[in-house]
Amino acid sequence: MAEYVLHCMAQSGHSYKVALMLELCGADWKPEWVDFFNGATRTEEFRDTLNEMGEVPVLVHGDDILTQSAVIMDDLSEKFGAFGWENDEERREILRWTIFDNQKVSGLLGPLRFLRTLMKTGETDVVKWLDGRSKSALAILDKHFAKNDFAIGKKPTSADFSLCSYLFYEGELGIDLEAYPNVTKWLGRIKALPGWKHPYDLMPGHPLPDKT
Amino acid sequence: MAEYVLHCMAQSGHSYKVALMLELCGADWKPEWVDFFNGATRTEEFRDTLNEMGEVPVLVHGDDILTQSAVIMDDLSEKFGAFGWENDEERREILRWTIFDNQKVSGLLGPLRFLRTLMKTGETDVVKWLDGRSKSALAILDKHFAKNDFAIGKKPTSADFSLCSYLFYEGELGIDLEAYPNVTKWLGRIKALPGWKHPYDLMPGHPLPDKT
Repeated sequence: MAEYVLHCMAQSGHSYKVALMLELCGADWKPEWVDFFNGATRTEEFRDTLNEMGEVPVLVHGDDILTQSAVIMDDLSEKFGAFGWENDEERREILRWTIFDNQKVSGLLGPLRFLRTLMKTGETDVVKWLDGRSKSALAILDKHFAKNDFAIGKKPTSADFSLCSYLFYEGELGIDLEAYPNVTKWLGRIKALPGWKHPYDLMPGHPLPDKT
Repeated sequence: MAEYVLHCMAQSGHSYKVALMLELCGADWKPEWVDFFNGATRTEEFRDTLNEMGEVPVLVHGDDILTQSAVIMDDLSEKFGAFGWENDEERREILRWTIFDNQKVSGLLGPLRFLRTLMKTGETDVVKWLDGRSKSALAILDKHFAKNDFAIGKKPTSADFSLCSYLFYEGELGIDLEAYPNVTKWLGRIKALPGWKHPYDLMPGHPLPDKT
């Protein structure tokens, strides 16, 4: 029995944030597959016992059940003494970029990839709207990473794992990341962290089950 | 000269979060109108001197420039000893609901109201998509507030100011909040806090400047 059990699935960038951090921290963890595509997170049982918000990831650690990737990563950074903050200024910088990520990076890239690549809706107005807003956010990141190695400066933190998550599903976004060279270099720095793995190598559920 | 200067505009729910908290804390503050609708947040000057993320609110306090409503509210809760957390568990509960808000409540209601009511795009597919997702988030909130007076339990915190912000522009959302009775009751509890004011009574810029 692993010490940490992460309820997740391979296609979830929000889950990947936590899976990557567990892996880089050297935690004793295992993934527990959630059948999101067949509605598992929408069931009463899931919402009553794991997460009222109806989302993955959920991290179970003994009697503790933690939800929201940002909260889980904050907890892990304290437990492992890694990728976290050392003072209030760092804590607020991590918060600043994590919020930006959840609202405008992962928050848009997640639905964009879901509709464009997983659901194959075609280039609908919704896809085009998400695409445009995602690119605005990527331009802001690209400018930031022209001057900063990582989200809050010189060292990698959970804010980087938050921001990078959907970007590692690169071929599935329908966005050419070469247009954002500083983002690409920053992703390379994350990939170079000892123990880094691709989402599909950390969590089960890929490829998408054939539902025909 | 006020001690705190909040760069904002009346139509911004994200700005309202901070304006409301400043007001309820009894801070010596004044709003500084940002001409968002004519592109002020997209200028190089704004991004280089106030916020690289190109967003309001921005709070200026002496030499400090703070951005992201969640970060600003965290700072204010410490300075005023109000609406914040007293231990790590409360801090993480505030974070959990603030992230949910930024991604799925304000993060969707903001664009929904912008397109539907301010830009008057009509019921496009984008508006319908945002409407559906906003209603899913409201249903989660409604279930939560059936059992909780405020976001993290018994006492109001910055997480409530985050979650409630766009909901006080009720007539402009195109969503009937009566369908979410527990949300409505919770909004009533926030309105009952001494000093509460509507966004249009706290910040300049309403009504929308006539651009014809």
